[in-house]
Amino acid sequence: MLILGIDPGLRRTGFGGIKLEGTKTRLVEAGVIRTNEKLGLASRLTELSEGLAEVMAGLDPEVVVVESLYSHYKHPRTAILMGHARGVILLTAALRQTPVIDYSATKIKKALTGNGRAAKRQVQRTVKVALGLEAEPEPADVADALAVALCHANAVTHESGLGGLLGRRG
Amino acid sequence: MLILGIDPGLRRTGFGGIKLEGTKTRLVEAGVIRTNEKLGLASRLTELSEGLAEVMAGLDPEVVVVESLYSHYKHPRTAILMGHARGVILLTAALRQTPVIDYSATKIKKALTGNGRAAKRQVQRTVKVALGLEAEPEPADVADALAVALCHANAVTHESGLGGLLGRRG
Repeated sequence: MLILGIDPGLRRTGFGGIKLEGTKTRLVEAGVIRTNEKLGLASRLTELSEGLAEVMAGLDPEVVVVESLYSHYKHPRTAILMGHARGVILLTAALRQTPVIDYSATKIKKALTGNGRAAKRQVQRTVKVALGLEAEPEPADVADALAVALCHANAVTHESGLGGLLGRRG
Repeated sequence: MLILGIDPGLRRTGFGGIKLEGTKTRLVEAGVIRTNEKLGLASRLTELSEGLAEVMAGLDPEVVVVESLYSHYKHPRTAILMGHARGVILLTAALRQTPVIDYSATKIKKALTGNGRAAKRQVQRTVKVALGLEAEPEPADVADALAVALCHANAVTHESGLGGLLGRRG
């Protein structure tokens, strides 16, 4: 099962595709889709949509996973722009008939570290360990995208009675 | 010149297509694109995108006009959801290679009533008069979409030295 985690942003959208086989996961491809800040908003959203469509065509994910909507943004303008990016991402996935699942930040943190209020740093360390990476993924958007993907992988293994991929970390 | 004004919203997106000939404008088609609240966000955004694509295919607008981004929302969640809808609208226009122009709320009010701080009611009255309608368009999303379209029509006639479509109302 190929799971594609996405961390939406207008400037930078992180993505991370992982393969789940039994209770094992491995990194397939991860990276960042950037948009040209000199372009207008409509053109940037087109770049984002085309970039994501390309990633999805390459990975052919069974599911796209994002963090749930939350509204604790310090800057309303940033929140609305993130909304533009997230909307375009959801649409792009839907046009490929790929289901989109979301998990709250608390749920993601809890799945990865056993603590729903864990620090970002801790989550990133788990991403590194769980995927057997040599270093924590950079930029943070990639680590965040991989974290949501792993959260879903964990939920799937739990549901299938395999005891949870990351359960031993809880 | 066919101008399509849009008032983005997840639940309801208002649209208004007007034809500008010289300094004359007439209403071609206006209405509302609704999305099914029972569906997930990705499906609703697909409905919105498909609905708008259909409207654009019918009207073949030269330009799409929206209100500029602003961030004075009372509810951050509503603002972010509106951002999802607006992002999808901009993308849908861009995919048809239709340019998108935006005007601030103040500019729209000033163009239509001569007063950048005019009440909504006043703006709606001008929409009715300028397009020779029998009643003010309902729901308000339609009137708002027509107001942005008229604001652009006014700017175009000003730029072409015709003195402005709505100037006499200033």
